[in-house]
Amino acid sequence: MSNWYIQSGKDSDVVISTRIRFARNIAGYRFNPNKEEAYEIEKNIEEKANEIGYNLKFLKLKNMDEITKLSLVEKNIISPELAVKEDKGAILINEEENICVMINEEEHFRIQVFNSGLELENTLNLAIEVDEKIQELFNIAKSKEYGYLTSCPTNLGTGMRVSVMVHLPGLTRTGNIRKILNTITNFGMEIRGIHGENTKSEGDMYQISNKQTIGVSEEEIIRKLKIITEKIIEQERIARKYLAEDEIELEDKVYRSYGILKNCRKISQSEAVKLLTEVKLGTDMGIITEITDKKVLELYLYIKPANLQKYFGTEMNVKERDKKRAEMIKRIMQ
Amino acid sequence: MSNWYIQSGKDSDVVISTRIRFARNIAGYRFNPNKEEAYEIEKNIEEKANEIGYNLKFLKLKNMDEITKLSLVEKNIISPELAVKEDKGAILINEEENICVMINEEEHFRIQVFNSGLELENTLNLAIEVDEKIQELFNIAKSKEYGYLTSCPTNLGTGMRVSVMVHLPGLTRTGNIRKILNTITNFGMEIRGIHGENTKSEGDMYQISNKQTIGVSEEEIIRKLKIITEKIIEQERIARKYLAEDEIELEDKVYRSYGILKNCRKISQSEAVKLLTEVKLGTDMGIITEITDKKVLELYLYIKPANLQKYFGTEMNVKERDKKRAEMIKRIMQ
Repeated sequence: MSNWYIQSGKDSDVVISTRIRFARNIAGYRFNPNKEEAYEIEKNIEEKANEIGYNLKFLKLKNMDEITKLSLVEKNIISPELAVKEDKGAILINEEENICVMINEEEHFRIQVFNSGLELENTLNLAIEVDEKIQELFNIAKSKEYGYLTSCPTNLGTGMRVSVMVHLPGLTRTGNIRKILNTITNFGMEIRGIHGENTKSEGDMYQISNKQTIGVSEEEIIRKLKIITEKIIEQERIARKYLAEDEIELEDKVYRSYGILKNCRKISQSEAVKLLTEVKLGTDMGIITEITDKKVLELYLYIKPANLQKYFGTEMNVKERDKKRAEMIKRIMQ
Repeated sequence: MSNWYIQSGKDSDVVISTRIRFARNIAGYRFNPNKEEAYEIEKNIEEKANEIGYNLKFLKLKNMDEITKLSLVEKNIISPELAVKEDKGAILINEEENICVMINEEEHFRIQVFNSGLELENTLNLAIEVDEKIQELFNIAKSKEYGYLTSCPTNLGTGMRVSVMVHLPGLTRTGNIRKILNTITNFGMEIRGIHGENTKSEGDMYQISNKQTIGVSEEEIIRKLKIITEKIIEQERIARKYLAEDEIELEDKVYRSYGILKNCRKISQSEAVKLLTEVKLGTDMGIITEITDKKVLELYLYIKPANLQKYFGTEMNVKERDKKRAEMIKRIMQ
């Protein structure tokens, strides 16, 4: 297992991951294709998949089993919207899962590149590379005046959406999170729950992304998001230092969470997330040494229902999952 | 450490300990002596202490430090009433602490013998032995009509109070405890919290004792209490079997409690008792193997404030105790 989502990267005490998405559409097709057009687009892309490179595999959503689709949603590699499409939709994905192009989601192409930790420049470079390959092979809709043309007006221009996933337990516990969220919004950025728009924060995880895509360069978007993210990292670390002043209080919370996770015999996903956020805070602050960063990230992944079922290779109902979740946690922790 | 209160005895999955008390008074002294008389009684007993035997040491309460007195109360070796007496009161106690005679508590003598587990006959035999020694040395007040004369009329006759401490988590959880408590009362027995009269049950611990002391022989009291205790043991074991039907539910509770106890960094006495009762249930049912019966009994003892302070050999405030309690639990559990 060496996928980006279970690696710890730069500033990974606060930043879990970096993602860049480019929205692209093929000229000559409607941006909201009907079933036949969608099928034609997908066929077209499938034929040229090998030429794009990066060992990208073409997979039709309708040919994927439900658990595999949901496991990709849980990893934030595909959107929930794509996963529920019944007759259209496909992905181009590599083995490491750090490149995943969604096809016929909101746009013909959503080129996505992922990295662990804060990796804006490297992620942008790879995303540009993949985009260039795609532009060599397809006639991408573009206007001199507006830039890349998109189905959704919020993607117009660069078609770029950069986002970083941050873990903010310190700011949440000190109550300063509201202030930070307002600041981010005032800087023209958006902050949302982990599964994107209209979702709530789970386990103190937030996704910060740019709102503006037009009238601004890719580099400028990256530059602004970097400044804001670094500010958040700084504020989160200050909040954690403040929490560390009551050492016993903090240690007690971290270790109790660790003790329950390691010893429970059944556990719901939501309880596991709550406990895991304490343990992650503990590993990131060097309070707890019994468990590595990497194992915490593995736990974050496998406590989710579809990935849990993938881990054990079997379908399970909620009650069985709660039991098997506890078993998996025990195994990974040992 | 080999004292009776950290040993597991017969039927110790349910019965923690057995205690027999004899109330005796010296003829010629008022049963409620004033300060001078009390002092004379104590002087009298102190002089003959060696002749009683059993390596009993004579200790005046007013010469004992507060923590030592409270640690004896926590072990149920002396009563809270004796511990708070300011100018009178003494004890005769041996090294193993299974014999402790309270002097000038409610009666001139309260001869006490303790055992772990259910040990009614053996405990009675030793109590009778000690009583005989005392009767050889002192002129004990007695009437042909009433038997032993006592300060408190509820002690009159045999002067004997037999009690067993039982742990009833099964009956508590199945809700059958009320029914059992009523049955016990109907059989002329009393059931109370762990520190005797007017105290509440802590951690599912109950003390069962005889109410009647007059018009009945010592052997008859023992026989009746034995029948009732065996009935309770049977009912408690049935309740536990019922709980064991939902194996995961039970294991989960036991192991979570274990996990918190082992990993917390601060803990109150009342929380520790709650968690420990789950762990004890787990060891007694063979669910948990990571901790022995003996260690559970040690934990029960040292979570209490005075014994905790004795363990570390230092006085502590509540906040310090909560921290040190967690440290002690970790040490004993390892």
